[in-house]
Amino acid sequence: MKLHWSPRSPFVRKVMVFAHEAGLADRIETIPTKVAMTQPNTELLKVNPLGKIPTLIADDGMVLYDSSVICEYLDTLHKGPKLIPRESGKHWQALRWHAMGDNMLDTLVLWRNETLRHQPQQSPETIVGFLIKTQTSLDALEKEEPQLAAAPFGIGHVGVGVALGYIDFRFPDLRWRDGRPKLAAWYEAFAKRPSMQSTTPVDA
Amino acid sequence: MKLHWSPRSPFVRKVMVFAHEAGLADRIETIPTKVAMTQPNTELLKVNPLGKIPTLIADDGMVLYDSSVICEYLDTLHKGPKLIPRESGKHWQALRWHAMGDNMLDTLVLWRNETLRHQPQQSPETIVGFLIKTQTSLDALEKEEPQLAAAPFGIGHVGVGVALGYIDFRFPDLRWRDGRPKLAAWYEAFAKRPSMQSTTPVDA
Repeated sequence: MKLHWSPRSPFVRKVMVFAHEAGLADRIETIPTKVAMTQPNTELLKVNPLGKIPTLIADDGMVLYDSSVICEYLDTLHKGPKLIPRESGKHWQALRWHAMGDNMLDTLVLWRNETLRHQPQQSPETIVGFLIKTQTSLDALEKEEPQLAAAPFGIGHVGVGVALGYIDFRFPDLRWRDGRPKLAAWYEAFAKRPSMQSTTPVDA
Repeated sequence: MKLHWSPRSPFVRKVMVFAHEAGLADRIETIPTKVAMTQPNTELLKVNPLGKIPTLIADDGMVLYDSSVICEYLDTLHKGPKLIPRESGKHWQALRWHAMGDNMLDTLVLWRNETLRHQPQQSPETIVGFLIKTQTSLDALEKEEPQLAAAPFGIGHVGVGVALGYIDFRFPDLRWRDGRPKLAAWYEAFAKRPSMQSTTPVDA
């Protein structure tokens, strides 16, 4: 398989963490691919008209996006315990946590793009909205930490953990651990997993 | 079931079209819910810390988001042909189309938010990026129309069709049908489905 990849994209990292956890990382050939909100990548657009990474090209040539679809596909390729639990209650709980991580990332990526604009083009109201949603999500995760820690390891943990890792990478000033000791402790253990250690983002 | 809902959100519309197609629409009680990028809805945040709609509250109290997870859940509740096909080839094709529709919507919603900003806060480069991605996606769909039309009706059609409907609603000046006769003809038929007719967006 080939994966359009970048060392900084959190959605790429999510797919790579998932692949490591599924024992599939060595079957993925990464294709370094640059994308920017204001500069669509014309080569990538030929494969994925959305111009987004991650984009997976399966061994049979099938092109898959976005990161959620790629994770679901990867989960069919290994014989270990499924990272997307099959049992109903656990399934929806895992997908909800995954959606929380993904939507936090959506917000955080937009927030970062906002801060990269020329000052006059930045919208303070929009940034306040991003901050509120991020804090509310972190507070909810702090409350749910006992369930998160007790659930069988899966896509929900990957989604939440990669989102927290992205805050550390791009928003260290948020000090998200303050007042959230349970989530902080959970993430400290999560971040030590080989899947996370081998996908640490590198700034350009 | 209860659904935090708005007549204008395309992601809500996607869930409602899906529910109609699955024969479940009359089991959903809609809760009109206002959200805006710059003004998180504090009532909604108590249920969904992301502050986004659609948010589903299942009959057993389980809270589900985002729209993809809700659609997958709804597909388990009916005995008709599954809208998320089980057979491998069709499954990934449908999820890819659905991801294309969803990501087009992400771009279009950001684009619209951008145009709602005070003029000095708008980024012309960002808008050009949105335009390119949207045009490339539409061109790809025009090329894939024969496969789209031939595939068994499912979540891929719902995702693509709702995205096209959103362009009609918010970006009529794009004239997306120009040069894309096959996609235009496909959508003309799609838009006549009762699921689409009963979910036509209404401006405030």
